[in-house]
Amino acid sequence: MTSERHLERMRRARDRAAERGLSGVLVSPSPDYRYLAGYDPPPLERLTLLAVRARADPVLLVPELEAPLARASPVGEAVEVVTWADGEDPYAAAARLVPPDGAFAVGERMWARHLLGLQAALPGARFEPAGSVLAPLRAVKDPDELELLGRAARAADAAFRRLVGERRLEGRREEEVADELGALLLEAGHESVAFTIVGSGPNGASPHHDPGSRTIRRGDAVVLDFGGRVGGYCSDITRTVTVGEPPPTVAEIHEVVREAQEAAFRAVRPGIPAAEVDRAARDVIAAAGYGERFVHRTGHGIGLEEHEEPYIVAGNDRPLEVGNCFSLEPGIYLPGAFGVRIEDIVTLTPDGPQRLNHAPRELLAVA
Amino acid sequence: MTSERHLERMRRARDRAAERGLSGVLVSPSPDYRYLAGYDPPPLERLTLLAVRARADPVLLVPELEAPLARASPVGEAVEVVTWADGEDPYAAAARLVPPDGAFAVGERMWARHLLGLQAALPGARFEPAGSVLAPLRAVKDPDELELLGRAARAADAAFRRLVGERRLEGRREEEVADELGALLLEAGHESVAFTIVGSGPNGASPHHDPGSRTIRRGDAVVLDFGGRVGGYCSDITRTVTVGEPPPTVAEIHEVVREAQEAAFRAVRPGIPAAEVDRAARDVIAAAGYGERFVHRTGHGIGLEEHEEPYIVAGNDRPLEVGNCFSLEPGIYLPGAFGVRIEDIVTLTPDGPQRLNHAPRELLAVA
Repeated sequence: MTSERHLERMRRARDRAAERGLSGVLVSPSPDYRYLAGYDPPPLERLTLLAVRARADPVLLVPELEAPLARASPVGEAVEVVTWADGEDPYAAAARLVPPDGAFAVGERMWARHLLGLQAALPGARFEPAGSVLAPLRAVKDPDELELLGRAARAADAAFRRLVGERRLEGRREEEVADELGALLLEAGHESVAFTIVGSGPNGASPHHDPGSRTIRRGDAVVLDFGGRVGGYCSDITRTVTVGEPPPTVAEIHEVVREAQEAAFRAVRPGIPAAEVDRAARDVIAAAGYGERFVHRTGHGIGLEEHEEPYIVAGNDRPLEVGNCFSLEPGIYLPGAFGVRIEDIVTLTPDGPQRLNHAPRELLAVA
Repeated sequence: MTSERHLERMRRARDRAAERGLSGVLVSPSPDYRYLAGYDPPPLERLTLLAVRARADPVLLVPELEAPLARASPVGEAVEVVTWADGEDPYAAAARLVPPDGAFAVGERMWARHLLGLQAALPGARFEPAGSVLAPLRAVKDPDELELLGRAARAADAAFRRLVGERRLEGRREEEVADELGALLLEAGHESVAFTIVGSGPNGASPHHDPGSRTIRRGDAVVLDFGGRVGGYCSDITRTVTVGEPPPTVAEIHEVVREAQEAAFRAVRPGIPAAEVDRAARDVIAAAGYGERFVHRTGHGIGLEEHEEPYIVAGNDRPLEVGNCFSLEPGIYLPGAFGVRIEDIVTLTPDGPQRLNHAPRELLAVA
């Protein structure tokens, strides 16, 4: 990633902000910051702020001790770096860099302490979430971003294949399998592990189950949902397996979920509202009588964040575009019994949707 | 950690909020949330909100798919859990749980998108950072917290001892040494690695240097600053070593920093304003002629967060209390040449200050 790429992203953010009548975009360390400035300062309590201004050049306000980091960053030579020292008021320093009565888009992950500090230092200003400016830019991936997302997906596939091909689940605790999945993600080329959900038997009915001490038994359905980062870009895949031959109800529900995911995949095309892709999956599950048991949206965009635009959810009328990258992950959850979810990352190409994950989607019986 | 402990923390937060004329404390997933509710839901874009209310029982608002997690948490049986579903407006749901014209303390790490959502849904309400309510509670550690901080510190000491005792620095890249430090932290009992700064030669003059491809050479001063978590609680230690015999300037400056750290340590006592401890270190460095090169505060509190109250910084008149835990980490940075920093975690006991780190503080010459 060159400096020029990040400067161009800042110009596009500035133009979009200006079009929307905003005075600028204010971003602190977060994926938005990395996207625009090309580096990742520690997201801590000291204010670091990139101000992309509608009527002036962008400027970086950084703690004095992090000035060398900012100056060595991909934009450090092209963008003015202003510093503040421990003991000074960073919000007053920020207020000097922008119009006092402006309207600002603020990074969605900015900490409340920083936003409240800016609101107090700029009492005449107005603030809105920066998604309106940045989400449409970030949601359309460039070829280098797609390459990293593809590598992340293939590495997650490899971790799944090794887990089910080389390891046993029966008789082991969920937390052991979760640790093993983490290690396999790293061996497959991930630089970090973000999460490893292992939900066995009734625990699978909790979609974000925190793997615990339950021992996995023969006949269990096991939801495996895991991901990490490659070059800063996220992987995220879910497969549901059974230990030994699948009980008939698990097989039946797995087939419903697989068809729902396929229906969502086939619905993806340029211009379709995200909500309609959600509906495509939901209709299949509702027709099978499990509508009430599909307790979450169908998917989420993915990139520098695990979850970002476009959200594949009822009410999101945003039309899908070529370059979007998102998960399709319908599920059915039967409290006290088990859960089933199948998730792939999908990108919309000029030739239609393409899966980035290629691990088998049929129900596997594992040891 | 029992449920009763977390319910007691919520009661104390409610009482402090009420004393300050606030209607409640609103906290989303973050160390504040873990401190009060005893579990760590994924900090994502879906709103999860703990409302500790001055005039009503506390309530948890969670995404429907995370309701099982909330109900299984240490407070899940004692606290009402309200859910919202994908596609619904979570901020409207939050607004129904609190007085519309209230004054609220909001968790300092709450994402801006959530704070802006709450501000829009509660246009008659007022918001301030929750530090006023929660920081004084969190800054006084209980015996179990001190035990975890002590274990984390000893594990960090062990990682340092093994690095300098068993490994070579000369001829290796900073990033290799950083990876090795991370592995040693895990082997010593950390559950995760938070950061591993390796700043060799001129890179050491950047206090938060991101370890890179520079090869460490004979004669280099190397700043090693690293930490992670044990039972959720943080370690954070810095030592500066030289590769081979120390050049005289490095030895001289290291001695100034060591004396400054010792002066800060000796200044610690109940009731002393945090700023005076900062001054004690700063005076030593200024007297040696390097005042301008000590470009950051002397320290920060530590606990569930790497950095929290009490901040040992000019302007912070908060008096130190028994049970506080914080770093003392003066440094001197000579741009283009090298840097020196020495950091220990210190706790204030009824018998005075006590270091939690015991790795040698004298200047070590390593291979």
